[in-house]
Amino acid sequence: MSVAGGPVDPALPRLGEGVQLGEGVTFGAYVVVHAGTSIGAGCAIEDHVTLGKPPRLSAHSQASRAKPDALLLDAGVSVGTGAVVFAGAKLGAGAIVGDQAYVRERSRIGAGSVVGRGTVVDNDVTIGERVRVQTDVYLTARSIVEDDVFVGPRAVTTNDQTMARHAGEELRGALLRRACRVGAAAVLLPGVEVGEEAFVAAGSVVTRDVPARTLVMGTPARVVRAIADAELLENWR
Amino acid sequence: MSVAGGPVDPALPRLGEGVQLGEGVTFGAYVVVHAGTSIGAGCAIEDHVTLGKPPRLSAHSQASRAKPDALLLDAGVSVGTGAVVFAGAKLGAGAIVGDQAYVRERSRIGAGSVVGRGTVVDNDVTIGERVRVQTDVYLTARSIVEDDVFVGPRAVTTNDQTMARHAGEELRGALLRRACRVGAAAVLLPGVEVGEEAFVAAGSVVTRDVPARTLVMGTPARVVRAIADAELLENWR
Amino acid sequence: MSVAGGPVDPALPRLGEGVQLGEGVTFGAYVVVHAGTSIGAGCAIEDHVTLGKPPRLSAHSQASRAKPDALLLDAGVSVGTGAVVFAGAKLGAGAIVGDQAYVRERSRIGAGSVVGRGTVVDNDVTIGERVRVQTDVYLTARSIVEDDVFVGPRAVTTNDQTMARHAGEELRGALLRRACRVGAAAVLLPGVEVGEEAFVAAGSVVTRDVPARTLVMGTPARVVRAIADAELLENWR
Repeated sequence: MSVAGGPVDPALPRLGEGVQLGEGVTFGAYVVVHAGTSIGAGCAIEDHVTLGKPPRLSAHSQASRAKPDALLLDAGVSVGTGAVVFAGAKLGAGAIVGDQAYVRERSRIGAGSVVGRGTVVDNDVTIGERVRVQTDVYLTARSIVEDDVFVGPRAVTTNDQTMARHAGEELRGALLRRACRVGAAAVLLPGVEVGEEAFVAAGSVVTRDVPARTLVMGTPARVVRAIADAELLENWR
Repeated sequence: MSVAGGPVDPALPRLGEGVQLGEGVTFGAYVVVHAGTSIGAGCAIEDHVTLGKPPRLSAHSQASRAKPDALLLDAGVSVGTGAVVFAGAKLGAGAIVGDQAYVRERSRIGAGSVVGRGTVVDNDVTIGERVRVQTDVYLTARSIVEDDVFVGPRAVTTNDQTMARHAGEELRGALLRRACRVGAAAVLLPGVEVGEEAFVAAGSVVTRDVPARTLVMGTPARVVRAIADAELLENWR
Repeated sequence: MSVAGGPVDPALPRLGEGVQLGEGVTFGAYVVVHAGTSIGAGCAIEDHVTLGKPPRLSAHSQASRAKPDALLLDAGVSVGTGAVVFAGAKLGAGAIVGDQAYVRERSRIGAGSVVGRGTVVDNDVTIGERVRVQTDVYLTARSIVEDDVFVGPRAVTTNDQTMARHAGEELRGALLRRACRVGAAAVLLPGVEVGEEAFVAAGSVVTRDVPARTLVMGTPARVVRAIADAELLENWR
């Protein structure tokens, strides 16, 4: 590891104070790395990326105001063109943050997981390993996504039943259990739990918990049938 | 106020002709400020921001072809990483434009309002004060959003009933009355008015006007009940 | 045409090896053009654009791993602020790629077509001529969009019925026939065909093929009526 200083040339990244770089890190053009960020060996940081952005909270945000830790990228992470990753996030080995995506403070992305182009991972989200989050998904603050989950493009999660009117209540994000699949453009109401190996059809509006190993669809989503043994993840990897 | 000239160093913003800067403005890296933009005291402009972009209209756009005025940022505005704000927009004191968001020509954002990450404010939109627009909302051209409105993540508004087939007709954006709340991923058909203190549930498709102080949900959205006195905004701020 | 070399000044674009530039190309600030990209006469490349990005595929991506051809922009193309266009894409004469939009490898955008702000054109998508794709649309891999189609804001297409569980099966994108119109936030299930001059209402979830010249709406979308002769495209251009 080495410690790098300020800017030198537009072809080089702009590195803040105390940035740590592992062996063989590659940078695209016009990259900004804020102070204290730690980038593991073999990471690939593409054009126009911003790493380690300090949070700037609005007056009514319920996110923590404590100064977050530094951003930590384990070995072999790649961060795509135009993506923004905040201070306090932690990306596991080999994780991929897609182009133009967005990952906020205190979120965790497990080893080998992929966050798609334009996807938003809000603050305090926990994503397990081998998770595949597709294009333009919105994972609201305090969501939990367990290992091997698949989330389709444009799925939306929410965490505030009152839409900002009961500021004292706790926000409840989505809870996506191991190996569940959430379809494209599905909408999950606050605090919904999707069970293990469950399947939420594209375009569903999920207002209640989804039992493990069931297929739900519709507005509001209802159970249509069980997931067959042949469809379990263990048969497809 | 001072008037600044051309580029100097990659660490400094690229300032066009006649840019006006108030006291204590801060800039991130790789910022572009187009000619004539006026930035008030204490504004914070983050990495990779583009301010004062001149519109480039397609041949069939119905937006005005008159040259817009300069972009005007009142004191204490912040513009997040990677955001794009056009010439002709006006941002009120203390307004926040989120990261990767987008605000077009002749739109107005009132004092103290927040436009979330990735949200699109199309041309000729008027947003009042203390409005909270969450992540990835789409506010179509000519929409009006009154004071104290809350718009949930991924809500979508529309303004063209014919989808470009009746070019002579006037486009009609959404009209969101004071203190209404529009849920996540709700879809509003062209010209819909959401009444004062009304509540549109997440995932609804709103095809008709929503009466004041009612809760609507479903596809198409229907009135479910009235909003209780205890839920009015005056009790929650 | 001329061949340009490496970076010179932050005010100039960073041009990779063998980039071809036609007459009168204009560049905004902080532009990156990767090796081999060919930019036709009169193209306008705005601030913070990335052109010719090489694909970086995840381990489980089904996109081709063959090295794509160079990115090719015909004369008069414009690429908006912050947009990313990959190597191997081809943009026809006068096409417009909106601000913050995203176009992947081996996709084709026909002459005079417009791809809106923030829209994603995934790999191997074919878009015809005079197509209008609005803001924040998601066109999944292997979709086909014929001439004169209109796609409303936030429409979503999908291509994988099993959500990654049957990796051997072929992905089937959307097929949008000539002059059809797809409404805002509509969701199209994998492999759906929307017929010529058909109209999909905003917020619909389309689970089956849509017959030509019909209007469909709802969840799941059903045929409501035929499209009248007076509504055919030939009467509106």
